[in-house]
Amino acid sequence: MTNDLRTAKGTLIIIGGHEDKTGKKTILKEVARRIGKGKLVVSTVASHRPDGYFEQYERLFRDLGVREVIELDIRERQEARDEAKLRMLDDVAGVFFSGGDQRRITSQLGDTPLYSRFQEIYDEGGVICGTSAGASVMSDVMMVSGDSDESYRLGDLQMGPGFGLIRGVIIDQHFAERGRMGRLLGAVAQNPRYIGLGIDENTAVVVEGGVQLRVIGEGAAYVVDGAGVSYSNVAEGHLKAALSIHDVRLQVLNEGDGYDLGLRLPMSLGKVEEGVQEPRKDAAND
Amino acid sequence: MTNDLRTAKGTLIIIGGHEDKTGKKTILKEVARRIGKGKLVVSTVASHRPDGYFEQYERLFRDLGVREVIELDIRERQEARDEAKLRMLDDVAGVFFSGGDQRRITSQLGDTPLYSRFQEIYDEGGVICGTSAGASVMSDVMMVSGDSDESYRLGDLQMGPGFGLIRGVIIDQHFAERGRMGRLLGAVAQNPRYIGLGIDENTAVVVEGGVQLRVIGEGAAYVVDGAGVSYSNVAEGHLKAALSIHDVRLQVLNEGDGYDLGLRLPMSLGKVEEGVQEPRKDAAND
Repeated sequence: MTNDLRTAKGTLIIIGGHEDKTGKKTILKEVARRIGKGKLVVSTVASHRPDGYFEQYERLFRDLGVREVIELDIRERQEARDEAKLRMLDDVAGVFFSGGDQRRITSQLGDTPLYSRFQEIYDEGGVICGTSAGASVMSDVMMVSGDSDESYRLGDLQMGPGFGLIRGVIIDQHFAERGRMGRLLGAVAQNPRYIGLGIDENTAVVVEGGVQLRVIGEGAAYVVDGAGVSYSNVAEGHLKAALSIHDVRLQVLNEGDGYDLGLRLPMSLGKVEEGVQEPRKDAAND
Repeated sequence: MTNDLRTAKGTLIIIGGHEDKTGKKTILKEVARRIGKGKLVVSTVASHRPDGYFEQYERLFRDLGVREVIELDIRERQEARDEAKLRMLDDVAGVFFSGGDQRRITSQLGDTPLYSRFQEIYDEGGVICGTSAGASVMSDVMMVSGDSDESYRLGDLQMGPGFGLIRGVIIDQHFAERGRMGRLLGAVAQNPRYIGLGIDENTAVVVEGGVQLRVIGEGAAYVVDGAGVSYSNVAEGHLKAALSIHDVRLQVLNEGDGYDLGLRLPMSLGKVEEGVQEPRKDAAND
């Protein structure tokens, strides 16, 4: 189904926003653990007013044992072609994209040497992390608006091209908190080839090998699988019409649960340790 | 699966709250159409301060052609045994339960002669309508709290005994507007024998024969079918844990769509006219 999955050596940590910064810090600890003794770049490009963002993350990651934390701030697109900026990404173990506006990230960085360098870091085994807007940009198609506390309308949804670090997936963040099930269902209805991945706040999906997902943090991640959809009105309905979509398969995953994008199967692993796990046998009966 | 479905001669009109009272009035018109030349009782028992509720509905229903609209207001439980109140329900074509607190409706009316009379009206072919709290009470198990704009926690959910006019279903209202997917999934996880039915505002589900659902109005109705669930953590997780539930089948139904509770199959009918329709053939392939 998703036959264009991107196998990769690197790891993605896709955070639904508002990761805990004062308590258990489960997610930031996981980032720090994976960075180990390496260098972490924090990109604040998503924010129009990045002042303070970096300093907060720098302090947090240093407290968690990361030795070198540096800021990558791009205020104008031409800076993304800057040699000095590019050299900041030499020998980097990981990149962390902060929140803001996903269109800022892609419009400033898309098709620049910096962007190519992020791809390289990932391909070579690095860790790419993003929270909120920084999470959305990781898929090839990203949500850019269509937020709603009411019924999803066919005309509400806007999508745009993302970074494509993870293929075959459309990511949404602040998921339960902002009532985004409707818009994710709408996105999947438009093309069930894409799996919808909704991530709650203070919750992250860790992707290894481009295919294996694992959930960490306090909330849930929702996988909307449209492979079995028998009907939807996205093509025929008028823009003010409510969505109709039949026979969606839905996974609600909490900490420890996993999901295999290739098999489209959930895995219930309890509090798993690292590494690829077998899907549950009894999850294959549908 | 839901082998205790209640076949019935009557009709239920289950409204997700905030039905349009000034524009097209699709839902109130449907109520009025089905009442025809009969008598409609509006019960304001759900509200602690019912003043004004009745007058508004009376005016609306009269404008829509209902000739006789009378108020049933129960402020104390002993009134539900009152002969005069009971006689108000003689020769009634339908009952409309307004919004408020579902626990008020069931605690004031449960196991009273009035309650038995509602059952009789339904069994004999009458129309029972309810909006918001008045919708929730129609199922045998009803939601009483657990509202949430964040991840559903296992300890959040509270349910209670409803009227049982429709069996095998747990109803939730103000659905997309109040982000209630989490709590409905939690309820279904507790016992997948029940189908979860979430109804948006200004949207109604019309139930005929106790089995055939049809959606009218502006928003969507969501059917959460847990028959194929392969795993959930409701029994083992601690109360603060996020819900995990795998392999839920989800239907998002808009105006004209239908659903068969017995077959657990959606029907896509376009703008249907009255009457029982065949399920889509291609919906049966899962």
